[in-house]
Formats: sequence, structure tokens, C-alpha cells
Amino acid sequence: MLYITRKEHFNAAHRLFNASWSDNENETVFGKCSNKNFHGHNYNLFVTVKGEPDPETGLIVNAKHLSTLIKDVVLDNLDHKNLNLEVAFLTGIIPSTENLAKAIWNELKPHITGCRLHCVRLFETENIFAEYYGE
Amino acid sequence: MLYITRKEHFNAAHRLFNASWSDNENETVFGKCSNKNFHGHNYNLFVTVKGEPDPETGLIVNAKHLSTLIKDVVLDNLDHKNLNLEVAFLTGIIPSTENLAKAIWNELKPHITGCRLHCVRLFETENIFAEYYGE
Amino acid sequence: MLYITRKEHFNAAHRLFNASWSDNENETVFGKCSNKNFHGHNYNLFVTVKGEPDPETGLIVNAKHLSTLIKDVVLDNLDHKNLNLEVAFLTGIIPSTENLAKAIWNELKPHITGCRLHCVRLFETENIFAEYYGE
Amino acid sequence: MLYITRKEHFNAAHRLFNASWSDNENETVFGKCSNKNFHGHNYNLFVTVKGEPDPETGLIVNAKHLSTLIKDVVLDNLDHKNLNLEVAFLTGIIPSTENLAKAIWNELKPHITGCRLHCVRLFETENIFAEYYGE
Amino acid sequence: MLYITRKEHFNAAHRLFNASWSDNENETVFGKCSNKNFHGHNYNLFVTVKGEPDPETGLIVNAKHLSTLIKDVVLDNLDHKNLNLEVAFLTGIIPSTENLAKAIWNELKPHITGCRLHCVRLFETENIFAEYYGE
Amino acid sequence: MLYITRKEHFNAAHRLFNASWSDNENETVFGKCSNKNFHGHNYNLFVTVKGEPDPETGLIVNAKHLSTLIKDVVLDNLDHKNLNLEVAFLTGIIPSTENLAKAIWNELKPHITGCRLHCVRLFETENIFAEYYGE
Repeated sequence: MLYITRKEHFNAAHRLFNASWSDNENETVFGKCSNKNFHGHNYNLFVTVKGEPDPETGLIVNAKHLSTLIKDVVLDNLDHKNLNLEVAFLTGIIPSTENLAKAIWNELKPHITGCRLHCVRLFETENIFAEYYGE
Repeated sequence: MLYITRKEHFNAAHRLFNASWSDNENETVFGKCSNKNFHGHNYNLFVTVKGEPDPETGLIVNAKHLSTLIKDVVLDNLDHKNLNLEVAFLTGIIPSTENLAKAIWNELKPHITGCRLHCVRLFETENIFAEYYGE
Repeated sequence: MLYITRKEHFNAAHRLFNASWSDNENETVFGKCSNKNFHGHNYNLFVTVKGEPDPETGLIVNAKHLSTLIKDVVLDNLDHKNLNLEVAFLTGIIPSTENLAKAIWNELKPHITGCRLHCVRLFETENIFAEYYGE
Repeated sequence: MLYITRKEHFNAAHRLFNASWSDNENETVFGKCSNKNFHGHNYNLFVTVKGEPDPETGLIVNAKHLSTLIKDVVLDNLDHKNLNLEVAFLTGIIPSTENLAKAIWNELKPHITGCRLHCVRLFETENIFAEYYGE
Repeated sequence: MLYITRKEHFNAAHRLFNASWSDNENETVFGKCSNKNFHGHNYNLFVTVKGEPDPETGLIVNAKHLSTLIKDVVLDNLDHKNLNLEVAFLTGIIPSTENLAKAIWNELKPHITGCRLHCVRLFETENIFAEYYGE
Repeated sequence: MLYITRKEHFNAAHRLFNASWSDNENETVFGKCSNKNFHGHNYNLFVTVKGEPDPETGLIVNAKHLSTLIKDVVLDNLDHKNLNLEVAFLTGIIPSTENLAKAIWNELKPHITGCRLHCVRLFETENIFAEYYGE
């Protein structure tokens, strides 16, 4: 069993915001991360798949195909977008790093064939990242 | 003459947008960078000052004081903010990396004493940065 | 189950030194890492916790609270300190990267509530890091 | 149980190439990665071992010894080499990142004593890396 | 005057080799960098232009256009190529980092319009880079 | 004229300390950076030289020779040392980043032949660096 990881990135605006709370409650819990006019990040996304290398190619997965898949399924929906307002698969989800990692896993999972999705790791900044392993 | 550089960072939302153009014109020129709901970045800011080290301290500037100054004058106005809507010193300025670097220089300049401001370098992403030397 | 990791850093002096050995024995085993006048490092510390995101906030842990906790419990005792001479929780412990990672785990563990401590990863340089998972 | 990781690097030329296929088939599957005149990479190699720190030294392994071992067993055979033409332990192996990580594990394994080899992680670029855990 | 820098990257094989010397002479001067079967690198390229931001856009240059230009003029000729054998604009040039930086400048220069080319900085590895300012 | 830069690193202990001041005065000015038991850093050193590439080799300087020179003249005196107590060329000099960069320049200058020393850039941490250009 080998693991291969592909790094991608996207830029997006977001705010931490619970729609069932008042503005005051949001600010108390989330502080400046809840700024109503949004802030944003350069997100770095690491997608890891696992499997046996194909003896004909030496590859678990064609890295270019994996990159294209991530772009088509995930990045085109997230890059230069507002995560609170514009992403269908985030509707009703507070766009924390944790929730975002899990939502990206859920989007990618049905499209990974010939190997298995192992981990989605998402850096919100250099100092904070979330990981989800599907369990 | 020696140079000392301090790195700081902030997260913000923005869009490239010329208020005197139609939405169509903005999208034609700026593409997805003009998304009306904003996107955002983790900005890395490098401020360089120059001078002679004080023979008593070996320092051009106390790095902690410089960091506090940058925080008070610049970062508190930019971090977790929307650069198009909430920053007094960016009013009427398209928040491109270039314009933002120059605006940060203009804010910092009057507060640098005992040495001279040499360069403001601003990374919008790992792949794009602007520099301004005051001339 | 999701994992969230927070990066922190501190600067410290240390030497590899076994007090029950002669200076010669220390130098034979540890080489220049045992220099009696110490050397030092910029340590990068990654603390990973795991849990279920709170449905109200989308967070396993408030990253700012986690950062403050690490600062109060660990960094204030290590930053700009001499790891052989000044750190109560390192008394009698050779400050290798391995031992330091484990000692930091032991300090943090009792203070992590609402989620579980998963990993302490400590970089001594860009080229060497230790990990401890509590088992 | 603690884990310690040592980072090393090497530069090499390679191409993805299945000798039992025609040039056309190779280009169809591997694209420009199969260029007959080769291309190359700065590889970053992370070797992780696990064990209990020796109570006398605080170390799982002397990091300098581990570095020398990696250099003697692996890097001297790979650095500034052509991975398709010049590396005895890669004969008959397509030098994909996955295969290369596994081959490095197999070379290192018999030489790790006093602790256990845990992981070989190999970065081909900043955007792609493979991991092998020996199972 | 403001400066904007765009980072790009490419992977290539090369060797340091003076065709008018014997193999022995090449090895004496260049060591393993002259390996006849080539080795390779992940090159990071930073292109800096300078000018006044357009008051209508806030931009010295559209970063996407600059990126496309670098790709069309330079990267398509270098990426996944052998720098000794396959690059028309390197014919007769020893592909040292220095010479490569200057050759990239010469290729880019005629295509930069609306602002001025200021610097080509080329990283061969994390530890070596060359810069050329056109003079 | 081309520029080539070589990166090296060393680990050292130091404190900011003016021997003509009382302990109280040192602490007032330098804060925790003046801790009497020292702290330390992983220093990253970038040495830039400039010149014309030799037409026979394509090189301003043999990067391996430059690396060996920096090691012999500078690193062997600084690596795993205490900068306040053990470095002959720092006697009487407060080991601030600024002073250290200038002292390294002064050590290297007489040994650079065949090209010219252009810049010494020294990172004390990822967030602070000093530069000296010899004037």
C-alpha cells in the first residue's frame, strides 16, 4: 500500500457565522473571524489517496488526472468565491477549516476510482490546518 | 548602512473593482478577481528599514517596537477586514497588491523614527508580491 | 472525527548533556551538540487535537483558545529560555527533540478539554522533527 | 513510542517510461513526463524511525548517524544521477515517486538497527509526494 | 515606481558541460554536476517588472497576462525538457543557473510592454539562485 | 553583471547584552532577549556575489567552492557555538542580527576572489533578517 498526495490551492472569502445567533453572539464566540464584511485566506489543500501502484505505470493514480479531478470537482467551486454565499455544497455549513475539510472529502469521495481517498488536509493559514480521514 | 526586515501577516477579503465601470467591464478586465461577493488572501508583509546600528544596543531598531508599530498603524486596520469597504486609508483606492503596498508605505512613513523606511514588500499569495521603495 | 493542528514557535538554548557522564563522554556521544556554552534553535511546535466539530460553531476547538493555552502552559516556560537550566518541567530530562516533544505532551494533556490531544510534533530545525502520540 | 524524522535531499534526472511499450504508448500515458531526453527534480526525502529514547542519551537514534546512513545507502546512489540508467536498485523499476519511495524503504530497512523504520516520504516537487510504511 | 513579481516553476534535466573540453576536464571542473547521463532540478523562476500602476486598474501589469506570457515564451520551452539538448535559445550556452537566468531575461525582454522588466531571479535549488538585472 | 546567492545555515546560542550596563538596564532595553542563560536560533545565511560568468564554465563562482569557503571562514566558527562567549571575530560586539551580518561580511570579504561580495543576508528567525552591502 502506497500513498500519494497532491497539493492544490485556492483563495476565498469567508466568515465564521451561525445564522441562528444574533450578531452579538457571533462576535462573542468568533471575534473578528465573524466580521460581517468577510475576510479571506489563501487555502492550501492536500489530497491523499492510497493503493497499489499499477505495475504497468508505476502509479497509484495519474497525478495530472487527480489534479484535474480536484480542480473540476472542488476548486472551480471554491476559488475566488465567498464560502458563505456562493458554494452549493457548503449551504447551511459554517465554513470553519474543519467543516470545509470534511465537505471537500464528501465532494471528492464519489469521484475517486482505482484507488482510495485517504486524507483531506486543508491549511487555512500557515498556522492552522484540519485533517479528515472519512471516519 | 544596514537593513533590517520584519515580517508580519494579515488576512483580508477584497475584490478588484473600479467603481466607475459597469459590472461587465470589471469582469472583462479583472475576471474572477472582481467577484462581487469578494475573495481573500493571507497577506505576508515585509517592512525593511535602514540605518546605522546604535553602538549601545547593536540595533538599527528594536524589532519588537517595529512589530508593535506595524501592528498599531497598519495591521489593526487590515487584519480580518474587507479592504474595499472598511479601511479608511484605502478609500477610493483599488486594493491591488501594488496599491496596497504603496498605501502601507504611506501609513508607516510618518511613524518611522531613528532610522529610515526602505521597502514595503507585500505578498498576496506565494506567487505574487509587490514592492515599493518610496520613489 | 476531525483533526485540527495549531503551529507555534519558540527560541531556546540547549545542549545535549548527560550529567552522570564526564565531559569527554558527553563530547564522544553528542559531539558539538554538547558544547558546554550551549547552542540554540528556533523550534516550531505543531499541536494536533481531535474530536467532533461542535454543530453550533463548526469548531473542534477555538483555535485562539488553543493558541493561548499552548502559550500559557508551554511557550511561556520555553521561549527565550535555556532548556537545561531554566525549565521546571524539564528538570532531569536531557533536552533532545524526542524528550522535549514528550514533555510538552505531558504538560498540555491535563489542560485539553472538549477534545483530545492527538499529536505533538516538534521541529528542532527544518531537517529534524520528533512526534509523540501519547502511547 | 516516539518518532523522529530526518530530511535529506538529492537532485536527479528521470523519465516515466515503460520499456515494453512503444514511444507513442509512453507518450499517451505519461505525456511530457516521458520525454526521451529526460527531465529532473530536486527530491526531498523524509525518513521516519520509531522507538523508545535511550534513557542515557534521550535519543531514539543519533540523528547524525541516521543522516550518514541515508547518505551512504541511498543518496550516494541517487544524487546527481539518472534514475532510469544508473541506479542498481532501480533496475527494471519505473521511477515514479511511488516506486522510488518503496525502493528507498527496501534499501534502508536492513540497515536500521536499535529502532524501527516507520515511513519513507518522498517529495518529487512541492506539489506531489509519496509515502510508504512497509505494508 | 512599483515592482511586481510573479513566481513560476519548471522541471528540467541538465548537466554542466563544456563541449570543447574532454570528459575528464569536465569532471575535474564540474564534478558530479557534469554526469553524462544528466541530473535535474525543480526550478523556481521569479520575474519582476516595474512601472506605475494604471490609475484605472491599480495594476502595473495584469498578473494573469504576465503569467501567460512567461509560460508561452519561456516555460513551454523549458518545462520537462533537457536544457542541454532541446532548447533552441540555449544552443551553445552552458546551462548554469547564471547563464539560464540571463537567457530567460533575453527571451522575455522583447515581450514586456507597458512596464519594464526589472529582474529575473532563478532558483536551481533552495540553496542556490541567480539574478540578472539586464546590465 | 550577474548575481549568485548561496544559502547556508548554523545553530547558535546568544543573548543581547551590553557589558557596560547593569543587568537591570539590559533587561529594560532587550527584554527576554537578554536572558542571562542565553537562548538561541537556527540562523539562515545568504551570501551573494556578483561578476561576469566565466565563458569557459558559465559560472561566476563554483558554488561548491563558495560553500566550502563560507563553511571554513564563517560556519566553523559559529555553528553550535555561543556567540557571546566563543567567537573570536565577535569579541566586543553585541550579537544582534545587524552586527552579526556585518561581522560575517568582514570575515568573508578578504577571501572572495574572482568575483565581488555583494550582500550578506542573515535570518535570525523566519520573521527577522538583516542585510549588509558593505557600505
